[in-house]
Amino acid sequence: MRMPGEAHALVRQTHQERVLRALRERGSLSRGEIAEAVGLSRTTISEITRDLLRDGAVVVVDTDAAQRAGSGRPAERLALDPDSGQFLGVDFGHRRVHVAVADASHDVVASGRQTYSDGAGWPERITTAFALIDRLGHDRGLHFRALHGIGIGVTGPHPRSSAPHAPEGAFGPGFAAARDDVDVAFAERFGASVIVDNNTRFAALAEALAGDAIAENLLYVRLSDGVGGALVIGGRIVPGATGLAGELGHVTVVPGGARCRCGKDGCLETVASVPAILAACRERGADVGSLDELARSRDPAIVQVLRETAEVLGRALGTIAMVFNPSEVVIGGEIARLAPVLVERAAETAGRELFPWVAAKPLVRCARLADDDGALGALAALFRSSPLLADHPEPAPIRALPA
Amino acid sequence: MRMPGEAHALVRQTHQERVLRALRERGSLSRGEIAEAVGLSRTTISEITRDLLRDGAVVVVDTDAAQRAGSGRPAERLALDPDSGQFLGVDFGHRRVHVAVADASHDVVASGRQTYSDGAGWPERITTAFALIDRLGHDRGLHFRALHGIGIGVTGPHPRSSAPHAPEGAFGPGFAAARDDVDVAFAERFGASVIVDNNTRFAALAEALAGDAIAENLLYVRLSDGVGGALVIGGRIVPGATGLAGELGHVTVVPGGARCRCGKDGCLETVASVPAILAACRERGADVGSLDELARSRDPAIVQVLRETAEVLGRALGTIAMVFNPSEVVIGGEIARLAPVLVERAAETAGRELFPWVAAKPLVRCARLADDDGALGALAALFRSSPLLADHPEPAPIRALPA
Repeated sequence: MRMPGEAHALVRQTHQERVLRALRERGSLSRGEIAEAVGLSRTTISEITRDLLRDGAVVVVDTDAAQRAGSGRPAERLALDPDSGQFLGVDFGHRRVHVAVADASHDVVASGRQTYSDGAGWPERITTAFALIDRLGHDRGLHFRALHGIGIGVTGPHPRSSAPHAPEGAFGPGFAAARDDVDVAFAERFGASVIVDNNTRFAALAEALAGDAIAENLLYVRLSDGVGGALVIGGRIVPGATGLAGELGHVTVVPGGARCRCGKDGCLETVASVPAILAACRERGADVGSLDELARSRDPAIVQVLRETAEVLGRALGTIAMVFNPSEVVIGGEIARLAPVLVERAAETAGRELFPWVAAKPLVRCARLADDDGALGALAALFRSSPLLADHPEPAPIRALPA
Repeated sequence: MRMPGEAHALVRQTHQERVLRALRERGSLSRGEIAEAVGLSRTTISEITRDLLRDGAVVVVDTDAAQRAGSGRPAERLALDPDSGQFLGVDFGHRRVHVAVADASHDVVASGRQTYSDGAGWPERITTAFALIDRLGHDRGLHFRALHGIGIGVTGPHPRSSAPHAPEGAFGPGFAAARDDVDVAFAERFGASVIVDNNTRFAALAEALAGDAIAENLLYVRLSDGVGGALVIGGRIVPGATGLAGELGHVTVVPGGARCRCGKDGCLETVASVPAILAACRERGADVGSLDELARSRDPAIVQVLRETAEVLGRALGTIAMVFNPSEVVIGGEIARLAPVLVERAAETAGRELFPWVAAKPLVRCARLADDDGALGALAALFRSSPLLADHPEPAPIRALPA
């Protein structure tokens, strides 16, 4: 049996986590006391504490000189940095960036958003985000000196290299730009490790953790300018073999249907995106130009369009749910909140796609979180990348700041 | 951040695994040498080796007296029990049980099969399996004294409790029987920990490991008396929220189509199971009563039926693949080998369901393994339940048979 590289990393991170936990629980300790507390050799402890000191997660607070009776070099006492334990979640949408800062106890201690223009390039987006983070730090007295990690949500498939030949516009503005440098920019600015993923995936993870009970298996779809999706299985985001997992918007639902911007025909996105729904309403004679107008209108043609859309959506969700057996199916996007009939009818239809004799059907529901879901999901992903938590999920639910 | 009980168990098993690995790689070692090799304290090593000796995974082979110049108590040298590293994979199909035995190096050292009648109850099935295992042990001189674990594949959803209201016959004979005792029967007989799962899931895991490179993300469908399926994501079997993941056979492919034994209409199983394919051939006037006759016949109507079936199958596989993004899609069952057109045409159709601009499409292929896939998959799941390789649910502590 070989020990793969990841296993080595797991063992190292497991050890780190045990050391941090001992310090968290007991306050300051010498290296010898740490070794005793966690049952590892002095050599191993020296290596681990060296890394933790270098990363700023741990600081030298004093020596045990005061307590020592005998001679010899006093041993350093180590403790968690009081300012450590901050996590930064950043979500770059098509037209705004959202930032959330959590402390070591997973509470969101600051959050905010800032818009940029639709066609803004990555340098402008990153500058906007840095300014927002500076402002939040200033307002809340946060220093970001020892960030545990930064999670960054971006639009479109991740990694970018998974879609090298995607047509212009297939994933909206910003995708084609050299966004792959965003992680470098943040790592250099803050000196912390960075994880990047698609922001719909982060939103799905945030939804999985947003309820009283964690949904370990969740299917997420977001109806917006396009239709995105993501899977959480066993409490983790599913990236897929080439980073393309979760593309529910591009499942064929109308064979030979309308051409989709992805190049296929009859994708779910051609039926269930907000522009597609508005267009269908107008085709039926309803005078709606925007989502707000759709929500306010009492035109029965609109309800009919929403019902038909929900049935198509529900069949697709039911098919996927039959194969992956989630406990929750979450429909996100503003329209899901504004038009409850969409979620209700999709739930009914999806239910009919599942075994009729199974009582425990997945809960099909509207998303709980709103525009900040990507940033909260990025935070959740950071918490989960802690190895003991990742393998044995138990983090507290993430709660947004009260407005 | 708390350290949950499972995390403690993970750490303990991780340490055990590192000790076993050191012994596997280096042969006999003293406890001091083990401590040095794995970077753990002497106290921790003493505890771990005590447990391993008690469980029979490790034995005392000699002392280092011969190598010692100085005085003092000679240190014991420990090694893996030569008979220790056995794993037992058992696959209970509808009409036969298949058994495979692997040693610590993961080589299959014995395997065999034994039929039972279609309606055989679990007591008969288990007795048949025990007799087969006894015979294999006798023929090969295997003692099964210190089995590392037993993996058992069964038909139908797992856990059984996930489908309490399944109609009679929905999952074939044997499902309704009290098969939940099968793990107890094996645990008592062999004094080893047991994992049980659906045998199609085990087959999928075996396929994921059967190639030169491990397919970490694989979608598996088996065309047989029914149509089963399974997902491997990140190298692991996906069980789903209630144990029902992978039911590709019950995805709706013909809305309002023929009634399926599951109670829904137009499921993939009503089109792509072997009985459904044979019935379709006969409807088109082809005189085929069995799979062998279908394979031998040159009737063009049969090719046409196979093509149409493959298109329905390919669309379903493509839809699922768009959401899961697997690297491989595997079609199992004897008919996939006998009728290559089925796999070829399904691959073409599935490919059209995916992004046209993505070059790295999943490989759609016929299964590599045959009837022994379930037993091999059960072995693979056992290997993966080694904590460093995966966190497959709950491998109970390894117990040796009482002397």
